[in-house]
Amino acid sequence: MRVLIALGGNALAGADGESRPDEERAAVDDAMESVADLVETGHHVVLTHGNGPQVGNLLLKNELAAEQVAPEPLDWCVAQTQASIGMLVMNALDRALRERGRPARIAALVSRTLVDADDPALAAPTKPIGRYVTEPEAAVMIEHGQHWVDLGERGWRRVVGSPQPRQCLDVAAARTLADAGYVVVCSGGGGIPTVHDEAGLTGIEAVVDKDLTAALLAEELHADLLLIATDVEAAVVDWGTPKARPLGTVTAAELRKYAAEGHFAPGSMGPKVEAACRFAERTGRPAVITALTSIAAAVGGTAGTRVEPGLNDLP
Amino acid sequence: MRVLIALGGNALAGADGESRPDEERAAVDDAMESVADLVETGHHVVLTHGNGPQVGNLLLKNELAAEQVAPEPLDWCVAQTQASIGMLVMNALDRALRERGRPARIAALVSRTLVDADDPALAAPTKPIGRYVTEPEAAVMIEHGQHWVDLGERGWRRVVGSPQPRQCLDVAAARTLADAGYVVVCSGGGGIPTVHDEAGLTGIEAVVDKDLTAALLAEELHADLLLIATDVEAAVVDWGTPKARPLGTVTAAELRKYAAEGHFAPGSMGPKVEAACRFAERTGRPAVITALTSIAAAVGGTAGTRVEPGLNDLP
Repeated sequence: MRVLIALGGNALAGADGESRPDEERAAVDDAMESVADLVETGHHVVLTHGNGPQVGNLLLKNELAAEQVAPEPLDWCVAQTQASIGMLVMNALDRALRERGRPARIAALVSRTLVDADDPALAAPTKPIGRYVTEPEAAVMIEHGQHWVDLGERGWRRVVGSPQPRQCLDVAAARTLADAGYVVVCSGGGGIPTVHDEAGLTGIEAVVDKDLTAALLAEELHADLLLIATDVEAAVVDWGTPKARPLGTVTAAELRKYAAEGHFAPGSMGPKVEAACRFAERTGRPAVITALTSIAAAVGGTAGTRVEPGLNDLP
Repeated sequence: MRVLIALGGNALAGADGESRPDEERAAVDDAMESVADLVETGHHVVLTHGNGPQVGNLLLKNELAAEQVAPEPLDWCVAQTQASIGMLVMNALDRALRERGRPARIAALVSRTLVDADDPALAAPTKPIGRYVTEPEAAVMIEHGQHWVDLGERGWRRVVGSPQPRQCLDVAAARTLADAGYVVVCSGGGGIPTVHDEAGLTGIEAVVDKDLTAALLAEELHADLLLIATDVEAAVVDWGTPKARPLGTVTAAELRKYAAEGHFAPGSMGPKVEAACRFAERTGRPAVITALTSIAAAVGGTAGTRVEPGLNDLP
């Protein structure tokens, strides 16, 4: 069975999300123990991952060094996090698999995600990225053409457009490697946001939601299961109330109904739910949302929120 | 014919080597025109590249932001340049090939180079990297455990170990993709320097010479030709004297003799000559050193310094 695992960027960083390299390495080591548990059972795994804390660090360095080094655009920074995380993932997973007596080949691809140049999200940036800064710090970057918003007590934060993923441009390479038996790491950070215009393919200053890209990638790779790994065991309705109830197996239609009722936080569980529904609806195959440490159990059907296609979604 | 092209990092940066992103993008666009000329003739191309100016920018940002963001180690920075350059190369080469009516699939791999943990070069760092800084700036980084040297009028510069490449750890993935018809970008910046110790594979703070890695990669990929692209048309003996003479076809043994006589600058033409000799000697196949704009002619045998195996090197 081919399983696409989407790992949260926070699962690959230190506890405070502003991680130091040694904390990030330790977090990746931990995460790969869970992934190795799944690979060990014989499933074919493709990995994608978030990059929020990591890209935040690169953006902050851009700003602090801007007087002496020209800042690198956001698409470059997304690419860069693919490589530093990809390297850590390859080394850690290699180690975890060897310890289990199940060595496997692993490859990490620099990977781009095609978006529409006229996606409305690009004209109205709302996705917060990077760290909080003070108003005067934000003012400097606003002068440089960036969009920043006042988020109250915690300070100002940059916002960028988060367009819909249309195509994983490097999926054919991922498929070639996966078919040859590799564990493939690709489309990290949602993939490098890329438009196709008169000059060909060009990276742009945006971020693509990593869970939505994961759903598209899973579809394009004909994955049997999309596994969205996060820090909670399941999607929960009535979260934070006495009626709170974790969801087990649900149809995409049921889950969409809960989403419409506002049960899932935007920017957090919201996009995971949307990604799981999209995959189930488009492919007729299931998606699971669960904790990173429960992914092997989730594939076995004993953990997480399992999103099944509805009767209308079956191929 | 499978051709491995090694591109200099300066060829992918602005003229002053301290490039801005738009200058770097333009330089990559130019370089890919030359590469596309070669791909168009039907040769199977694998690309590797330097990253000196690019990694220098990341290191300087590390230093300028060190009080607020933990600096990322050199192996991370090497990885990051693989991805940002890899993305630019994929987009630019895709465009150049489409304009020629010869679209091809292109992939860029995050790639590690195995080095010996006890390589003597790691104990005695001599390879200068990054920009020149003032003595007080260097002093801060020396306190952080880095090695910096006084290079006179231009200032201080960091030095790191440059160990010998032993194995391109991700060559199997590169071969899988190349065999499937991809133009593959790999081992950028000499590859991420990696040791194998009791904890498995771990990146280290070092840089591997990109030309020496290119020779190893070409050997491991069974390339028919190693093509080292630089900013001069040929290796020159008696450079800067009235007797200056560009070399045409030479044997590796002849070229080594010139090298021993001190005709080639260390850190510049020196490693290119060493890489070309190694490839010819180990494989019995030729290597060419020439200008980026002459690579198509060089493959045809009408440009550059062509290093042939000696009689003793033939398989």
